[in-house]
Amino acid sequence: MNDQDSRTPTYTTQGAAYERDARYLTTRITADGSSPYAVEPGRYRLVAARACPWANRALIVRRLLGLEDALGVGLPGPTHDARSWTFDLDPDGLDPVLGIHFLRDAYLARDPEYPLGITVPAVVEVATGQVVTNDFDQITRDLSSQWRAHHRDGAPDLFPAEQAQEMEQVMRRVYTEVNNGVYRCGFAGSQEAYDEAYDRLWTALDWLEERLSTRRFLMGPRITEADVRLFTTLVRFDAVYHGHFKCNRNRLTEMPALWGYARDLFQTPGFGDTVDFEQIKRHYYGVHTDVNPTGIVPKGPSLEGWLTAHGRESLGAGSPFGDGTPPGPVRDGEAVSPGHSPLP
Amino acid sequence: MNDQDSRTPTYTTQGAAYERDARYLTTRITADGSSPYAVEPGRYRLVAARACPWANRALIVRRLLGLEDALGVGLPGPTHDARSWTFDLDPDGLDPVLGIHFLRDAYLARDPEYPLGITVPAVVEVATGQVVTNDFDQITRDLSSQWRAHHRDGAPDLFPAEQAQEMEQVMRRVYTEVNNGVYRCGFAGSQEAYDEAYDRLWTALDWLEERLSTRRFLMGPRITEADVRLFTTLVRFDAVYHGHFKCNRNRLTEMPALWGYARDLFQTPGFGDTVDFEQIKRHYYGVHTDVNPTGIVPKGPSLEGWLTAHGRESLGAGSPFGDGTPPGPVRDGEAVSPGHSPLP
Repeated sequence: MNDQDSRTPTYTTQGAAYERDARYLTTRITADGSSPYAVEPGRYRLVAARACPWANRALIVRRLLGLEDALGVGLPGPTHDARSWTFDLDPDGLDPVLGIHFLRDAYLARDPEYPLGITVPAVVEVATGQVVTNDFDQITRDLSSQWRAHHRDGAPDLFPAEQAQEMEQVMRRVYTEVNNGVYRCGFAGSQEAYDEAYDRLWTALDWLEERLSTRRFLMGPRITEADVRLFTTLVRFDAVYHGHFKCNRNRLTEMPALWGYARDLFQTPGFGDTVDFEQIKRHYYGVHTDVNPTGIVPKGPSLEGWLTAHGRESLGAGSPFGDGTPPGPVRDGEAVSPGHSPLP
Repeated sequence: MNDQDSRTPTYTTQGAAYERDARYLTTRITADGSSPYAVEPGRYRLVAARACPWANRALIVRRLLGLEDALGVGLPGPTHDARSWTFDLDPDGLDPVLGIHFLRDAYLARDPEYPLGITVPAVVEVATGQVVTNDFDQITRDLSSQWRAHHRDGAPDLFPAEQAQEMEQVMRRVYTEVNNGVYRCGFAGSQEAYDEAYDRLWTALDWLEERLSTRRFLMGPRITEADVRLFTTLVRFDAVYHGHFKCNRNRLTEMPALWGYARDLFQTPGFGDTVDFEQIKRHYYGVHTDVNPTGIVPKGPSLEGWLTAHGRESLGAGSPFGDGTPPGPVRDGEAVSPGHSPLP
């Protein structure tokens, strides 16, 4: 998520535990006129690198809710220099709607002195070219709550009100211990900080393994936002966190419930079809030069297991979408590159 | 195996494939008077760091053949500086028999201008303090052939004459593609060199997986030197080669025949009881600063699987030792440190 504002970025700080810079542009886009930024189809563009787990959340939620027509998407490439994510996968290296090379330009359009990280996901107002928000936690919440008028028919309710309290607790623990926990392992600046981070991570993964051994999804038989948030870490686990971040007590494939759960989601429209394993690997192994100075990107792991039968249907009656339906096919021009995923 | 003779050792060479320096002191210790160095109990000391896979071969063969009384052992610690393996695990940091801190001193006693790598295993003549040989391939061959008069009762024949030709072919392929193949992945100086090394390694591991699906051991129902040589790489695979050397198509635990085979050997006296997973991890992750600049040593992987049932008895009738017997208990003072192995 973070891009470091220095010439030679470093992600580890010698002797120190990793602390995420959690300061964002928190302007909201709302449906009720409470913000100068109103929900309006075509007014904004979601910028979300496929490589990034925090951006991946927004790509999944946009698909699940069917917001493709209302909210276009720009896709920076997997690597970036010390200053910015870039649109190097687009023709001429320009986002075709925003017309910029560097995501940084959209941050500077909002604030010429913008002092914080150039992160994805970011929602940009197309007319002004300004980043409205990069507050990843709020962005997906608002896609569910504020953009409701533009959801597709059959869109799932990712924040079921009757489970709100427990779901917030689960998402909080998943965030601090797992989503951020893998980074705490990988960017630890001392053996002690790493050892502590590793124990915290695996305590949480053991808890999730147990929770998911009797529940098809985190909150029961239907998918919710909590699943989106855990999925984006799990899908990266064996490809990058296990080796690159030294989260190596077990591979995901060795945790039966978590591995079945991750495959179940991967095979659900809206999840796996947003995942580009090549971009994920190129990002982590290429950008964190202080962890992997050679910059060599592993060829593994083997991906074919993602498409194997997960056998988890028996844990939940009915559809993962409840009364709703799965999203339709991926839009033209938004498909993951052939060969970057085990999906056909 | 190699210690680099420079201030800041590097193991990768940018843009280049990895080439092992295969020049050694090739003096032999023989039984027939053909060498000034005759086989003689107590005359020599085997210096073999537990961390090193090439030294681990000699530790296993010494145990299998029951040469503990005839050939003492010195055990340097897992890490070393740019100049030498050191006896930092011994009281006062001195090998109790050779009386030296640095293995380098035994090389310089042999040749004050010694220009090559300070490697283990090395066989040192105690009286002169000189390295006789560090030719790892020949050392274990000679423990079998030249030291026969000092083998224990029931020692296995690790080089069965009737299988010599096929066994040499198997050992050659295991050496170039697997033993050295993992280093070729880990020390690749370019993406292209790595990609090629990875494909070579996995081609060989797939061949071994198939070979071992119908044979209990590499040459059939009995253990041979070929198994010793493959085992020392396999036992390090998930702990270091999978992540640190990016050999990550699969974990060993995901290759059914290889994983069963490796556990079968691990649980055989003389194999697993020589393996110190902590020293192995501290060596690779601590010494290769150009691959792992943080020096952080992963806590994983989980080791308990090594003691699970392997179910491979059905692939070979009779004892893995043929007409012989397994070696007895590990000698006092030669046991792996508690907690450094899943063995009790």
